[in-house]
Amino acid sequence: MMSPVSGQPTAADDARRPTNVILFIPDGFGPASATMARDYLRKYEGVGELAMDSIQTGSVRTFSTSSRVTDSAAGATAYATGVKTYNGAIAVDTLQRPLGTLLRAAEGRGMATGMVVTSRITHATPASFSSHVPERWMENEIAAQQIQSGADVILGGGMRHFLPSSAEGSEREDDRNLIDEARAKGYTFVDDRDGLMNLSNGPVLGLFSMSHLDYEIDRDPAVQPSLAEMTDKALSLVSKDKDGYFMMVEASRVDHAGHGNDAAAHLKDIIAYNEAMEVALKHARRDGNTLVVSVSDHETGGLTLGRDIHKEDGVDGVYAWHPEVLHRVEGSHGAMFDAVSARYDHLPDGATATDSVDAVAAVLSNMAGIDDLTDAERASIQNSLGSYDLNYTVSDLIERRAVIGWTTRGHTAVDVNLYAYGPGVENFRGNMDNTEVGDILASLLNLDLDALTADLREETEETQKAEKSKTDATSGPSPGSE
Amino acid sequence: MMSPVSGQPTAADDARRPTNVILFIPDGFGPASATMARDYLRKYEGVGELAMDSIQTGSVRTFSTSSRVTDSAAGATAYATGVKTYNGAIAVDTLQRPLGTLLRAAEGRGMATGMVVTSRITHATPASFSSHVPERWMENEIAAQQIQSGADVILGGGMRHFLPSSAEGSEREDDRNLIDEARAKGYTFVDDRDGLMNLSNGPVLGLFSMSHLDYEIDRDPAVQPSLAEMTDKALSLVSKDKDGYFMMVEASRVDHAGHGNDAAAHLKDIIAYNEAMEVALKHARRDGNTLVVSVSDHETGGLTLGRDIHKEDGVDGVYAWHPEVLHRVEGSHGAMFDAVSARYDHLPDGATATDSVDAVAAVLSNMAGIDDLTDAERASIQNSLGSYDLNYTVSDLIERRAVIGWTTRGHTAVDVNLYAYGPGVENFRGNMDNTEVGDILASLLNLDLDALTADLREETEETQKAEKSKTDATSGPSPGSE
Repeated sequence: MMSPVSGQPTAADDARRPTNVILFIPDGFGPASATMARDYLRKYEGVGELAMDSIQTGSVRTFSTSSRVTDSAAGATAYATGVKTYNGAIAVDTLQRPLGTLLRAAEGRGMATGMVVTSRITHATPASFSSHVPERWMENEIAAQQIQSGADVILGGGMRHFLPSSAEGSEREDDRNLIDEARAKGYTFVDDRDGLMNLSNGPVLGLFSMSHLDYEIDRDPAVQPSLAEMTDKALSLVSKDKDGYFMMVEASRVDHAGHGNDAAAHLKDIIAYNEAMEVALKHARRDGNTLVVSVSDHETGGLTLGRDIHKEDGVDGVYAWHPEVLHRVEGSHGAMFDAVSARYDHLPDGATATDSVDAVAAVLSNMAGIDDLTDAERASIQNSLGSYDLNYTVSDLIERRAVIGWTTRGHTAVDVNLYAYGPGVENFRGNMDNTEVGDILASLLNLDLDALTADLREETEETQKAEKSKTDATSGPSPGSE
Repeated sequence: MMSPVSGQPTAADDARRPTNVILFIPDGFGPASATMARDYLRKYEGVGELAMDSIQTGSVRTFSTSSRVTDSAAGATAYATGVKTYNGAIAVDTLQRPLGTLLRAAEGRGMATGMVVTSRITHATPASFSSHVPERWMENEIAAQQIQSGADVILGGGMRHFLPSSAEGSEREDDRNLIDEARAKGYTFVDDRDGLMNLSNGPVLGLFSMSHLDYEIDRDPAVQPSLAEMTDKALSLVSKDKDGYFMMVEASRVDHAGHGNDAAAHLKDIIAYNEAMEVALKHARRDGNTLVVSVSDHETGGLTLGRDIHKEDGVDGVYAWHPEVLHRVEGSHGAMFDAVSARYDHLPDGATATDSVDAVAAVLSNMAGIDDLTDAERASIQNSLGSYDLNYTVSDLIERRAVIGWTTRGHTAVDVNLYAYGPGVENFRGNMDNTEVGDILASLLNLDLDALTADLREETEETQKAEKSKTDATSGPSPGSE
């Protein structure tokens, strides 16, 4: 290790301990994502740096116990608990036993806590701070645990896992209405931007969509709050607590756009993340007691700025990339498909494949500024009509013009950028393991995650024992049973 | 900007000024390159961290004046001079005027200086520290300027630009023997590992190959020194100077392997860079006066660890990458082609395309451990027989098995990792512009690059004036000439 610039390491130094921690997780934000957004802002807003550029302190390695390429569940669990686990695990260890999390430990110490996300609040990242299940897709169970977690601020999407099965759009398989249950516990429930903005006290449960919030590029600002607005409101609520606060903010959909290889949606959600970071940093600079750490869980998509297109096209695209192509795009791939579907509905009976391709071409012209489709590109569109492949055909059309590459619809193993500001910042430097980030945050906040883990394990064992004896009692003694 | 951890900024603080600077440039080393090498070393050597991991302090943005995707000339010029310029420029500005460089300014201040590289010493990166030409391919002119640069240690490849045109393999177009000229200036000339190892005094010109040194994966350690050996020897020579030293070490061929999409060669050259960093850091830890900075000029190849191969192959390759595939590879693509050529020479008259494919398959079995070629892969090989495309066919065979992606045969724009250790380290943090790195190094070493630039410009203007008057005198007054 390098000799510390500041003289002494400081985890034990109270003067350097933060009262509050804001942990940002820009899900799926890789090193190239940062360059992409900065290059764009330099060209279109004359801003040479991202809000977090000056506070980069190193990078983080993200492998899980089951793969060199982590998923968001194992990635978030590492930050939330300081323990590596398998892909798919939500705050449980490799033996599926619950692990104490920063949020629950902070809650236990009387601090205010919050979670602000743009995905379903039951998605892997927020779930790993506020619930314990062996498999990330158990989102109904996650929701039920989340309203018991004690979090003072819960903002995001995912209402479908909170409504009883009888409600339209619900994904629950039981009759529980978790929104009512939350209200009974004292939560105010809000479901749109105005409702959130008018709040002045917590606790609050804000669910602004049945599933994920809209991509920033598609968002109606009158209906859904931005990540920056949610962050600002959440900070105003949790900062009233004299015992300090722990807040996790996830720019969730940076990842989803990566999975869809949707460069413009990826870019605009990164810019929304950047704006939320500005809000948090402004807050931290003002109070002087707040540590802000931002670190992705993994990269998504294998994004590269630059792509070898000359070899196929006779176009020398190497040594360039063109943000202006993304600047012309006015909707996510999903929004474009909605527009295509609307056009299909108006095609006359007996419409030909050419008519269908024309419908896609019209949407590309209107929403992506692409008016120069080649015959080969029209043929590609025709081949993927009516299939999900159309998504990647459109991606390719846009990204070839932007000279951008993607190599996967999944994640990659590349180290992610580490940013930190505030008291305790000197502990975040160099290339760190993702579990170290969680461990150090716990130490700086005086949270004993091991003790909480022990409590949770005991609780689980008692519950299992109780369930077992209930089952035994119900089924009665069974001769010859093991 | 974050409040400095160390209290006061220190560029003006002599106590924090380094006596010596070692600047490492791992050419073409992107963020994924670091992850790749660490994952490999963790598996095969039980080493969890790279030598530089604990000293990462941020990242660097690399765009040039002519493109968001820089080349090595503009990239190295930014570090060498603190000035952004166009792709292709070697230590000249956008008006092609010479720029003062760290190496020449250090030389002018009486410091010892050195350059250690694995490419031709006349290649863009070392050229940008030791010569001034408007176009990187002017390597004969670069060589001539390099032996005038005053550098005390010059180690690398590129002998073909130092030998007179009459010599076998020379690329010069004149009769100058720059090796003899260097000897006349007091340089000892060496051309193999033993010659270098036996040296105890500089100045030294060591040229170990006509062109680039071999890739680490192909290197014969009895003939060519490793990057770590060259670094160690160079440090032992320049550190004798009481006035301090400036040394630039380039892991040049990390980039070349990226251009070739040759993952195993890329990996092994990164490991060689890591070993050279260990040598430098050991040195710096011992003397306490040496600042080590390591920063790439740009990423090459668009490397991603993870790749979406299931959609074509029915194989779910997402969420994994496999270093064991690269572990089995025993030579660079170039070495494999040499082996293929040797087999071709032994094919009987009337050999079929199948025989040729079999020759390639035998080499892949022997040198890459690939014994499971599919019919489709054999067809790909057959289609690219006799063409340079065979390189990328082989790349694809290996990288699909490793679940690695490449998106380009050129560079990409992604920010590169910044590493720093030693006195003055606190100046290297956050995401910096590449020119800031050069500026801060100059400031820490008390080098006035602007003054040197002014001198060089005056010199150039005088030379041009002299050449003009010589031309005028030779051609005589010409009535009616402009």
